[in-house]
Amino acid sequence: MIKVGIVGGTGYTGVELLRLLAGHPSARVTAVTSRKEAGMKVADLFPSLRGRIDLAFSTPDEARLQDCDVVFFATPNGIAMNEARELLAAGVRVVDLAADYRIQDVAEWAKWYGMEHGSPDLVAQAVYGLPEVNREVIRGARLVANPGCYPTAVQLGFLPLIEAGAVDLSNLIADCKSGVSGAGRKAEVGALLAEAGDSFKAYGVAGHRHLPEIRQGLGRAAGQPVGLTFVPHLTPMIRGIHATLYARLKTDLDVQALFERRYEGEHFVDVLPAGSHPETRSVRGANVCRIAVHRPQGGDTVVVLSVIDNLVKGAAGQAVQNMNLMFAQPERAGLDIVPLLP
Amino acid sequence: MIKVGIVGGTGYTGVELLRLLAGHPSARVTAVTSRKEAGMKVADLFPSLRGRIDLAFSTPDEARLQDCDVVFFATPNGIAMNEARELLAAGVRVVDLAADYRIQDVAEWAKWYGMEHGSPDLVAQAVYGLPEVNREVIRGARLVANPGCYPTAVQLGFLPLIEAGAVDLSNLIADCKSGVSGAGRKAEVGALLAEAGDSFKAYGVAGHRHLPEIRQGLGRAAGQPVGLTFVPHLTPMIRGIHATLYARLKTDLDVQALFERRYEGEHFVDVLPAGSHPETRSVRGANVCRIAVHRPQGGDTVVVLSVIDNLVKGAAGQAVQNMNLMFAQPERAGLDIVPLLP
Amino acid sequence: MIKVGIVGGTGYTGVELLRLLAGHPSARVTAVTSRKEAGMKVADLFPSLRGRIDLAFSTPDEARLQDCDVVFFATPNGIAMNEARELLAAGVRVVDLAADYRIQDVAEWAKWYGMEHGSPDLVAQAVYGLPEVNREVIRGARLVANPGCYPTAVQLGFLPLIEAGAVDLSNLIADCKSGVSGAGRKAEVGALLAEAGDSFKAYGVAGHRHLPEIRQGLGRAAGQPVGLTFVPHLTPMIRGIHATLYARLKTDLDVQALFERRYEGEHFVDVLPAGSHPETRSVRGANVCRIAVHRPQGGDTVVVLSVIDNLVKGAAGQAVQNMNLMFAQPERAGLDIVPLLP
Amino acid sequence: MIKVGIVGGTGYTGVELLRLLAGHPSARVTAVTSRKEAGMKVADLFPSLRGRIDLAFSTPDEARLQDCDVVFFATPNGIAMNEARELLAAGVRVVDLAADYRIQDVAEWAKWYGMEHGSPDLVAQAVYGLPEVNREVIRGARLVANPGCYPTAVQLGFLPLIEAGAVDLSNLIADCKSGVSGAGRKAEVGALLAEAGDSFKAYGVAGHRHLPEIRQGLGRAAGQPVGLTFVPHLTPMIRGIHATLYARLKTDLDVQALFERRYEGEHFVDVLPAGSHPETRSVRGANVCRIAVHRPQGGDTVVVLSVIDNLVKGAAGQAVQNMNLMFAQPERAGLDIVPLLP
Repeated sequence: MIKVGIVGGTGYTGVELLRLLAGHPSARVTAVTSRKEAGMKVADLFPSLRGRIDLAFSTPDEARLQDCDVVFFATPNGIAMNEARELLAAGVRVVDLAADYRIQDVAEWAKWYGMEHGSPDLVAQAVYGLPEVNREVIRGARLVANPGCYPTAVQLGFLPLIEAGAVDLSNLIADCKSGVSGAGRKAEVGALLAEAGDSFKAYGVAGHRHLPEIRQGLGRAAGQPVGLTFVPHLTPMIRGIHATLYARLKTDLDVQALFERRYEGEHFVDVLPAGSHPETRSVRGANVCRIAVHRPQGGDTVVVLSVIDNLVKGAAGQAVQNMNLMFAQPERAGLDIVPLLP
Repeated sequence: MIKVGIVGGTGYTGVELLRLLAGHPSARVTAVTSRKEAGMKVADLFPSLRGRIDLAFSTPDEARLQDCDVVFFATPNGIAMNEARELLAAGVRVVDLAADYRIQDVAEWAKWYGMEHGSPDLVAQAVYGLPEVNREVIRGARLVANPGCYPTAVQLGFLPLIEAGAVDLSNLIADCKSGVSGAGRKAEVGALLAEAGDSFKAYGVAGHRHLPEIRQGLGRAAGQPVGLTFVPHLTPMIRGIHATLYARLKTDLDVQALFERRYEGEHFVDVLPAGSHPETRSVRGANVCRIAVHRPQGGDTVVVLSVIDNLVKGAAGQAVQNMNLMFAQPERAGLDIVPLLP
Repeated sequence: MIKVGIVGGTGYTGVELLRLLAGHPSARVTAVTSRKEAGMKVADLFPSLRGRIDLAFSTPDEARLQDCDVVFFATPNGIAMNEARELLAAGVRVVDLAADYRIQDVAEWAKWYGMEHGSPDLVAQAVYGLPEVNREVIRGARLVANPGCYPTAVQLGFLPLIEAGAVDLSNLIADCKSGVSGAGRKAEVGALLAEAGDSFKAYGVAGHRHLPEIRQGLGRAAGQPVGLTFVPHLTPMIRGIHATLYARLKTDLDVQALFERRYEGEHFVDVLPAGSHPETRSVRGANVCRIAVHRPQGGDTVVVLSVIDNLVKGAAGQAVQNMNLMFAQPERAGLDIVPLLP
Repeated sequence: MIKVGIVGGTGYTGVELLRLLAGHPSARVTAVTSRKEAGMKVADLFPSLRGRIDLAFSTPDEARLQDCDVVFFATPNGIAMNEARELLAAGVRVVDLAADYRIQDVAEWAKWYGMEHGSPDLVAQAVYGLPEVNREVIRGARLVANPGCYPTAVQLGFLPLIEAGAVDLSNLIADCKSGVSGAGRKAEVGALLAEAGDSFKAYGVAGHRHLPEIRQGLGRAAGQPVGLTFVPHLTPMIRGIHATLYARLKTDLDVQALFERRYEGEHFVDVLPAGSHPETRSVRGANVCRIAVHRPQGGDTVVVLSVIDNLVKGAAGQAVQNMNLMFAQPERAGLDIVPLLP
C-alpha cells in the first residue's frame, strides 16, 4: 500500500484526489492537512465522502507527512516551493498540483506568479508530469510538477501537429473554455452562480499564467519557440475544459491518421472518429482527454477540439496517473472510472 | 458471471445501467436492444462509454435475451408488461425499471397509466424492489418492479415515522423537486435548456403517476390507507431528487434516534447528523439516499429532507442492487462509487 | 421629478433599483452611495448600465441625501435603523429594502437578527410596504419597510385563504424555493456556481429570519397567531422564488373564485386559470406575482403556487411601487416591463 | 401607429418580437400567425405576455397580413421566400428574420440551405439589415433580410479592422459561442437541459450556414474575398453570443481608437474601455453589441471580443431597429431596455 499525504485538502483538487484515492486498489490516504479546518472530519466538509474517508483534517505538524510514500500538494501556488525540500530529503516523493515547479525558467515564473521562487534549485530536478510526453522520466521522478488544466488540454491537442513539423509555429491559437471549478473553491464574487451563471466571458486576454507553461511545452516539442495566442473563457458549467485550437498546415496531410498514430496505445487520450465534436460531459469525472481534428472545407487551417475534466485529467487524475508511474503500479490503477453522463 | 440483457438502452436509465455494469465485478452485459438504433455502436450514441462498452444495439430478435440470466427493462411504461412473460418462462429473471409491475391494484394502475394491463397475473408475482423494505423477498424474486424515483426518496423518508406509528397518517405532505433527467431522454419542448433552465415550476399537482405508488408503499407500512399530498417540481439541474416531507407527530419523540435506528446497517441509506441539510450533489452518481430529520422550533411538525440521484438509487443503481440480491452477490457489488462533487 | 438617493448601490437590489429607475418617467437617481467603491462609475461595476446611469458611487457625506425626496436603503440589515432618523428629520422619505423596520416586536427582531435595534421608536411609525394589503397607509407613509422576498410570495399566496377564514390556521406549510441572487452579491463559498450549481438543498430549516415576518403578516390578516412551518430551499437558478403553500380547508369552497375576487384590480398580482403551474421565468425581471391554486383530487388540502422575481416584486420593484404610492404617481410608473422569456 | 404582423409567432424570435413591440410607442401588433396554434391565446403559450398581448394566434388566412404596414417572418428558413411576394405586391414591407434573403448568391444559398430558392428575383432587391453598415439603404427598403445572430456579432467585431485595411484577410478566425436559444424552440434531444446543460461542445466545424453570410459581409467590406474559419460552439446558457475573433495586423495601429472612431454615434454598438472583457449577461435582453479589442502582449495578433443577445441584436431587436428605420421612427424607439443583470 502506498501511503499518501495530501497537503491542502479543502479545495476542489483536494476533494477530487480523495474521491479517486478512495477507490484506488494500492494507495491509502493517511493524512490530509488543513491549517484552517484542522480537527474537522473531512466528510463533514464534503458529505460526498461520508463512509469513504474517515480521516479528519490535521495540521501539518500532526500529519507526519515524512512517513508518507508520496505527498500531493493541492495548495495555492507558492506553498510547495517552500515545503517540498524537507519531504524530499526524508525520501518522500512529491507531486505538486500547483504551478511552483512547472516553469523551468525561474525568472519567467517569478514574473507571472508575482513572487520570488523559494527553491529554484529544485525546479531543475522537477519532472513535468504529462505522461503522454514524459512517461519514462516520470517513472524515476522524485518531484513531479503536475501540469495545469489548460496546458494539458492544449498540449495534447497541438503535440501531434508540432512533433510532426506539420504546422506554422508562428501563429498558433488556443481558444479555451473552462468550467468554474477551475477557479477553485474560493469565495469570490465573480464565481458566484448569480454572476457566472447563464453568462459567458473571456478573461486574462492580456496574459494568463498558463501561457508560459503551454509555450514551454510546445516549444520543447518543436525544438524552438512558438508563437501562441491563448484566450481563456469562463463557461457557466462546473467541470470541463474545451480547447479549440487553430493552426496553419504547411503541407497536405492526413491529420486524422496523424493523431491516431500519435496516441495509439495511450489509454487516457481518445482520438475520436473524423467529423466528431467532443462534449466536455463525455469526460466528466474521468481521466481522459478526447480529441477530434478537423480541416474545415478541406483548407489549410486545422482545427483541433480537445476536452478534459479540469479536475481529473487536468489535475487530480493526472496526479494519480503520475503516482502510478512513480510507484510502478498499473497506470490505470484507480482511474477506471466511467464518465458521468448525463 | 451474470449475463445481463438490457431492453431499451438509449434512454438515461439505459446508459446509467451500462455505466454501473461496466464496473461490476460479476456481471457482464451481453445485449442491449433498441429497435431504432439497431446496428449502431452503443459508444457512438454515448461517447462516455468509449472503451468500456463494445456492444452495438441489437433488435430484440437478435439479442437472444432468453440466454441472459437477467434482463432489465429500461423502456417506457407498457413494454415489460407484454414482454416479461416469455423471458420468465425461459427462466430469465426480470427487473422492470418502468412502472408496469409497481402497483398491485391493476385497475388503479390502468387508470393512472392510461392503458389496460397486459399481464395482470404477473403483477401479483412481482416483488416491489425497495431493498430496505423487501430485502428477503427480493432475494427469491423472479420479477422485480424497480421503484420510481420519487417513490424511493419519499418512502425512505417517511417509513421510519410511519412504521413507528409516530405521525398523523391523514395529512402527509411530500413536496418533491427533481432534476430534468427524470423526464427521460425524449425530445420535448418543456425539457429544453432554453425552457427548463434558470426557472422553477411545479407540475402534475392535480395528480402524478407516482402518487398511487407512494400511497401503496406507505399504506403497507402503516397497515391502513394514508392521506398524502404529493407535489412534484421541475428544478433546473440534471440529476437529483430532493424530497421535503411534512408530518404531524402524535407524540413527543427523538426523531433523530428513530431514523438512525431504522437505517442502522443499511449501506445505501445515510442518516445525517441532526441539523443537516443534504444537497442533491452529495449523492451525484451514487446509489445512496441521504436523509436529515428536523423538528423546527421543537414543534410537532417533523420535516424530513431526503435526497437521491434519480438515475441511481432512483433507477439504475437500485436495479443493480436488486440484481445483486437476486443473484446472491454482495449487495454493494458494482455500487461502491464515490459521488461526484463538485 | 422625484429626486432619489440609493444607499448601498453595489448589491443586487441596488443594481435592480438602478435598472428600474433608469426607465422611470418621473424619478431620477441623484446619488448612489458606497463607502467601498466611492469614486468608481456605477457603470464600470455594472456594465449593463453603460449609457443609462452616468453617476459615480459617492461616500455618504458627498451624497447630500438630505436633498433627495426619497432614499432607498439597499444595504445589509442594521444600517437603516441608524441612518434613517436624520433623513426623516430632514423631510426625506425612506424606503428600507433590508429588514430593520419589518418586525413590530422589537425584541423578536433582535432575537432573529442578532443585534439590538438602533431606533425602536421608528419601528412603530414604519409602514409595512405590501401594497396589496397596505396601499392606503403607504400613500401617507414617511418610512416604509419593504417586505422580504419570501414573505411577499408567501403572504400573497396565503392571504385570500386566511382573510376568508377558510383554512385551519394551526398548520400552514410554506415550502419555498429561491434562486441564488436572494443571497446577495457577497463572496461566499456556498453561493459559488461550482457549489450551488446543478444541486438543490434546503437551508435554515431550524429557523429562518423571514419566518417571524411571515407570521406577523399572516397573523394580522387572521386576527390571531398562526402556526406556520417555513422551509426555504436554494435552487440552481439566478432569479425567482417559487412558494408552494399547503393548508387544510375548513369548508368546501371555490378557491379559484376566491383568489380571483381577492386580486381583482390588482395590477401586480396575476391569478392564473385553474389548473395552471406558474414558472418563475414567467415573471423574470417584472414586478408581478403569479398565483395558481389547486385542490388535488378535490380533497381538503389546498395547494397554492406563488411565483415572483425575488429582485423585483420581492425587492426593488416593490420598492418602486411603494415610492409611486408615496408620491402620488401611477402605481405602474416605471414598472411596465415585460418578463424576459426565454 | 405602424400595424405589424408576425408570421410564425410560436418560436423564440416570435415571442421576443412580441416582448419588444409590447413596449413600442408607435407600433402595434395586429396579427400573429401560427397554423398549429391557431385559436390559442398568445399569452396562454407565453404567460410572460399575460396582460400585455391580448391577441390569439390566427391562421395566415384570417390574419389579413396585407392590411399590415410591415410583416415580420419569424419562421423557419424557406417560408418567407414563398410568401413575401404577395405581401410586397400589396404594399406591405417585409422583414425576414430567417435566412431566405441574406445571401445574394442564390446558388450558394441553395447549397447551404438544401433547397431551391423560391423567389431568386427578390433576393436582389433585398437589403441586408445591418444598420451599422446599411443604414441609409434600409430606410428605403421594402424587403429586409435581417442578419443571423453569429453574423451580427462577427461582422460588427471584424468590420473596423477590415474597413481600415488593417489585417491579413487570408486568415480570419471567428471562434463563437452561443446560448441554446439560438437553436430555436424545437423539440430536439441535443438541446435538452439534461444534454446541453453543464457541458460544452463545438458543432458544425465542417461548415455552418452562417459561414457564407459572414464571408459575404466581410468580403463586401474588404472589396475582395476573405479567408475565414468559423467555429460555433454550444454553451450551457439560454441567451447570448460571444464571438472571439482573431486576425493578424499588417501594420502597427491603435486598435482601440480605430474601434471607437468606427462606432462613434452608433447607439447600439458599445466599444468598451481598453482591457475589458464583455460578459454576455451585460447585454441580456437588450439591443446592444458590446465590443472589446486586445493585442495580447502587444503582438501583431488582434483579439476582438464581441457580445450580443442572440434574440435581440441578433434577431428581434435588430428587426425592430430595421423597422424603425424603414418607417422613419427614432432608431431607438421601443429598444431602450436596460439589460437584465444578474
